[in-house]
Amino acid sequence: MAQDTFSKEETLAMRRRLIGHSCRLFYSDDPVKIIRARGQYLYDEHGKRYLDCISNVQHVGHCHPSITEVAAAQMDLLNINTRFLHDNMVQYADRLAASLPDKLCIFYFVNSGSEANDLALRLAQQYTQHQDVIVLDHAYHGHLMSLIDISPYKFRKLSGQKEWVHVAPLPDTYRGLYREDHPNPGDAYADTVKDLIDEVHSKGRKISAFFAESLPSVGGQIIMPQGYSTKVAEYVHSAGGVFVADEVQTGFGRVGTHFWAFQLQGEGFCPDIVTMGKPMGNGHPLACVATTVEIAGAFTANGVEYFNTFGGNPVSCAIGLAVLDVIEKEDLRRNATKVGAHLKQLLTQLQTRHDIIGHVRGIGLFVGLELVTDRRTRAPATKTAAEVVKRLKEQDRICVSTDGPWENVVKFKPPMCFSIQDADLVVRCIDRIITVSSERGCTLLHLQACVQLNNTSKAT
Amino acid sequence: MAQDTFSKEETLAMRRRLIGHSCRLFYSDDPVKIIRARGQYLYDEHGKRYLDCISNVQHVGHCHPSITEVAAAQMDLLNINTRFLHDNMVQYADRLAASLPDKLCIFYFVNSGSEANDLALRLAQQYTQHQDVIVLDHAYHGHLMSLIDISPYKFRKLSGQKEWVHVAPLPDTYRGLYREDHPNPGDAYADTVKDLIDEVHSKGRKISAFFAESLPSVGGQIIMPQGYSTKVAEYVHSAGGVFVADEVQTGFGRVGTHFWAFQLQGEGFCPDIVTMGKPMGNGHPLACVATTVEIAGAFTANGVEYFNTFGGNPVSCAIGLAVLDVIEKEDLRRNATKVGAHLKQLLTQLQTRHDIIGHVRGIGLFVGLELVTDRRTRAPATKTAAEVVKRLKEQDRICVSTDGPWENVVKFKPPMCFSIQDADLVVRCIDRIITVSSERGCTLLHLQACVQLNNTSKAT
Repeated sequence: MAQDTFSKEETLAMRRRLIGHSCRLFYSDDPVKIIRARGQYLYDEHGKRYLDCISNVQHVGHCHPSITEVAAAQMDLLNINTRFLHDNMVQYADRLAASLPDKLCIFYFVNSGSEANDLALRLAQQYTQHQDVIVLDHAYHGHLMSLIDISPYKFRKLSGQKEWVHVAPLPDTYRGLYREDHPNPGDAYADTVKDLIDEVHSKGRKISAFFAESLPSVGGQIIMPQGYSTKVAEYVHSAGGVFVADEVQTGFGRVGTHFWAFQLQGEGFCPDIVTMGKPMGNGHPLACVATTVEIAGAFTANGVEYFNTFGGNPVSCAIGLAVLDVIEKEDLRRNATKVGAHLKQLLTQLQTRHDIIGHVRGIGLFVGLELVTDRRTRAPATKTAAEVVKRLKEQDRICVSTDGPWENVVKFKPPMCFSIQDADLVVRCIDRIITVSSERGCTLLHLQACVQLNNTSKAT
Repeated sequence: MAQDTFSKEETLAMRRRLIGHSCRLFYSDDPVKIIRARGQYLYDEHGKRYLDCISNVQHVGHCHPSITEVAAAQMDLLNINTRFLHDNMVQYADRLAASLPDKLCIFYFVNSGSEANDLALRLAQQYTQHQDVIVLDHAYHGHLMSLIDISPYKFRKLSGQKEWVHVAPLPDTYRGLYREDHPNPGDAYADTVKDLIDEVHSKGRKISAFFAESLPSVGGQIIMPQGYSTKVAEYVHSAGGVFVADEVQTGFGRVGTHFWAFQLQGEGFCPDIVTMGKPMGNGHPLACVATTVEIAGAFTANGVEYFNTFGGNPVSCAIGLAVLDVIEKEDLRRNATKVGAHLKQLLTQLQTRHDIIGHVRGIGLFVGLELVTDRRTRAPATKTAAEVVKRLKEQDRICVSTDGPWENVVKFKPPMCFSIQDADLVVRCIDRIITVSSERGCTLLHLQACVQLNNTSKAT
């Protein structure tokens, strides 16, 4: 194992030589080399500390000692495929089942959110014997070929939209079709799905699945309006399709009040398939699909084995169990609720002083800060958002990034041990950066006015 | 972490209740519960030892202490995504590059052989701007939707053959079109690919890739005839396609004499894309795609990021490096060469005494024993193969399994520390089982003859 074997320049040169350039770096102008991490803090090759606001994968904190301990003990004892019986997988499935509504009681373990979403699509199509899929605008469900097909965020730049994929409006009440002034945006957005289903039917096609993140992330850290999912599920079920909740980014207590983000839609709502991934193994490649007896039964009925070489192995499941233990023992959902509310409150206060902050939204430690150049038109302030990311890194050593179709939403998805002090720090720094930026903006505006005046004088 | 928390019956009951039944168990009538392992040995809940002849994933041996040590140290230090710079990934890519021909110098790290093959398909299609793929009969390339499409072993039972997929004959010199008596089976089989390309062209379609395992595994532990790949590569390149070598099962020295199985085809042959997986992390979910500067360049040129959440993280790459170190330090390729040759020799001796052994083939620790009911017709002895698997487990606690379209090839793909004594034991046990089985067969034949004689007497 190499630790800081090479200078940063050497590492970068080797990376450019050996790794496909499609694999991009954060801060590509001056990337960060990290050599150790703990909790919500990263340390570069000089020992300089960065506050990490974005590593949602390292869910219970970077390098949590109890996860490492469990992983090492299980690695020393046994790692084998699931064609042999082992307690870890069934115990882990049992623990996950306890977190879900009763009907989601059958599990398939895989290695990544992408593998989970690919399998979910197979399950949906096999069960319904229909092909078509409805997805939300700007959605991203993974890097596999099947998932690029159902990810408008990707397919618009690549292969284009397939005839079996249909894009519903993103239920974004800040920037979308129906906004905060609408009496019932949940119903109104659900009706757009109903209309889409009617359109699909009119072409003689049939819906296998409505596929959506419980809180659309790449779409811009969107909080679904109340009532949306229940109504959509009704329409989709009527069409013979199933509701797939992609919880790859949002599960495992990130929203604080609930273990799963789909539960924010109320007890009356239950998806037919739930996919999970990123936070599940705290960085270890581990993901899962949960579904119903009926859907799993239809998949079994095709008579073909599903074998995933690494999926569900004793080490992965031991790590998954350890992550659940830490979430409970350290009461991380409570922390996410508390710190997330505090962060949102601070950002909302900031909004009263900075016109550029168009919208603050979030729940638990899933928070978005949407920047706009004009509050009335809501024109995205993409450049300022990029500047905030860059200056937070350079001046304050704080890592955040942006999301949304216009990359103008500063997103916060930190490890769940993120503290009140961390929230205070990042908001204070954002305040300073926006203040300087707007002053410079005024100066720039003033300068432009002067130049214009000067030019006008010359012209006359 | 749970260790033998439940009785075997409880584990089995929980598994049946909680895990999709498409995920099958070995020895489904009486599955084995394994709770620890070391080297090439598995131990059940009663401490009974099983000799493992099939876990090719646990490549350098189950629970190798130096892998565990490295993994735990890196888990304690840092695990983060590859948007940050880190030495492990570039160092690992550099080590892999040293094992490959110079032109295969660009790497993409992923979590499973399936993810690797899906990406390989994307790379091939993006680079060539063609769609069609040629695969070998009975091939299996993974569980993802895109890979079921290019796996005759799966699509024949599921969605059927897509118009862009073309199946070439398996270059099997024991059972295929051209056999051991053919003067040049390599060229003859390559010509079947040429004919297929001509047929594809005549439909106005274009080849993106010829996609094949370097030694077809599910196809029946097939050893490609000499000259085949070089010739196929010529034809595929002429058609504007690329040659993808799936080394997911066969890489990392399994064949002993070479690090990659494609190298068995001689120095004149080099694939354009190589995918790797199973043995790479000794059980840790780790896989990779290696390709050329030109193909990677075309993939970058589409302007779309390729991000794999867990792929290439510091823990995975530390484990990958540790596996390479063990292969070298313990000279496991030499062991594979020596023990594999010994195993093949013993099985070949067995063949002189048992008519049911139609063919013995293999290289290094990739060995197949093909059973037939008739050496002339080569009719597959599927039942006897199943019986060998069952009796080896029940009577001798030895795990083997079968492959091939008729499940009549007993396969050996053990951890690379498999010993001469292990080989002696398994062959001795197979000898005994086949002897008893054929005696019982004779008795049965004798009984049938008596019954027939008896019936005949009655009739007259």
